Amino acid sequence: MISENDCGRMLNLNGALMATTMARIDPADRGFTLGDGLFETMLACAHQIRHLAAHLNRLRTGARVLRIPLVMTETELCTLLNRTLFANHLSQAVLRLTVSRGPADRGLLPQRASPTILITISPLSLRPSRPVEAVFATTTRRNQHSPLSRIKSLNALDNILARQEAADRGVEEAVLLNTAGRLAETTIANLFLVTEDGKVRTPPVADGALPGIMRANVMNQLGAIETHLLPDDLLQATEAFVTNALGVRPLVAVDGHTIGGATRVQERLSL
Amino acid sequence: MISENDCGRMLNLNGALMATTMARIDPADRGFTLGDGLFETMLACAHQIRHLAAHLNRLRTGARVLRIPLVMTETELCTLLNRTLFANHLSQAVLRLTVSRGPADRGLLPQRASPTILITISPLSLRPSRPVEAVFATTTRRNQHSPLSRIKSLNALDNILARQEAADRGVEEAVLLNTAGRLAETTIANLFLVTEDGKVRTPPVADGALPGIMRANVMNQLGAIETHLLPDDLLQATEAFVTNALGVRPLVAVDGHTIGGATRVQERLSL
Repeated sequence: MISENDCGRMLNLNGALMATTMARIDPADRGFTLGDGLFETMLACAHQIRHLAAHLNRLRTGARVLRIPLVMTETELCTLLNRTLFANHLSQAVLRLTVSRGPADRGLLPQRASPTILITISPLSLRPSRPVEAVFATTTRRNQHSPLSRIKSLNALDNILARQEAADRGVEEAVLLNTAGRLAETTIANLFLVTEDGKVRTPPVADGALPGIMRANVMNQLGAIETHLLPDDLLQATEAFVTNALGVRPLVAVDGHTIGGATRVQERLSL
Repeated sequence: MISENDCGRMLNLNGALMATTMARIDPADRGFTLGDGLFETMLACAHQIRHLAAHLNRLRTGARVLRIPLVMTETELCTLLNRTLFANHLSQAVLRLTVSRGPADRGLLPQRASPTILITISPLSLRPSRPVEAVFATTTRRNQHSPLSRIKSLNALDNILARQEAADRGVEEAVLLNTAGRLAETTIANLFLVTEDGKVRTPPVADGALPGIMRANVMNQLGAIETHLLPDDLLQATEAFVTNALGVRPLVAVDGHTIGGATRVQERLSL
């Protein structure tokens, strides 16, 4: 089944630019059979891919953790990404770079395999700075004991479950707690809050926060500090916001409780 | 890249029997982009698929958890599985039934999608009852707080990481602890041990044990009980074994410590 919006779109598969409808993933690809791979989501504005070097650096870190041999250089990946963006005639767009371990025989232990590298482009449909409401996910917890909490892997099901719970409860987003009950992140973004003392705080990577590219950028700009945070810290915050590659959004309510209301800190950001 | 052993093999994709080399997964398939799906591994002996009804029942439970609409009936799935097995001329084989949510536009929250149903067949290459050595995985932990620990999802990366660690440490298998430090299972099997009192014990599902089909079978036959178990319980066991759809294997050593040595309990099993 080809989704409607894909008609006419171009993607890049293993270095070859082609129509989305022509691209074939091997059914034996470990990305498909085991979620064995990584991805990066990037924003392009005015034909420029934002924070590209940082995204490729994180991808390479993830590939090292999973031991996926990523033989393409940063320059080669840049070229592919830019070529694919250009072919889609979108000045503003969302790029996704997916790297899976590639096709292989049955079995969990990776044997020699040649990674699959896929680049897809989507239009940016919604305003990236619109406010968001959330719930605390009760369906699942983020596993801060797993290295997967520190890389952007293809194992997204916990986040999908939490997102489904959010939709059931009438909001867009869910805040994930880790297995110790502390704040980790949301299903697609990092979490920041401002406490009464005016300090900007964010959950540490060791608590299950993905080391987001925008998170690092925002931490630098605001001098934010990593601290263990509990659900109550969020409910009592004077201001809260979430960040990902697409932007920064005010987090205005959690579990029906309005949060702070101020956007003073967010307004200081230059993204 | 087509793996060598695939040449000449037939698979079934969405009801259609075809050569493995001809099958195409859409790059937008959420199985590939997000690990959004489920699978079952089944053993066929003498052209019969073992415990087929139980496997399909577990698949349906998983589909309910993930809310993947599985419109095919058990009878239809049986027919497809048997037809695919028959087409491969293997009297003894491993079948894998993969169900993903199907192709969709970008975004975590599932929109309308038509699931992808893939059946692949592999020869059974190794004796299913050969002994196995393991280590306690230190790289990662199994998240018993997540519903994913109770379904057979496509999010296999924690198990892959543990399997890689096992290989690094010179053995085949790894025992996964849950986030509370208790025994959960191995990377591809459930775990049983016999304590000094002669009781057969296995970690409970609530501790992160996948509700295995063979596990249920073995529990019934041996009157095994579910108990919280610690690494030391395994090291002090008089006998230990692991079970999955392919069979039962004596677990003979963990972290270099020989375990029990008896196979009295295992020998009582009729699989």
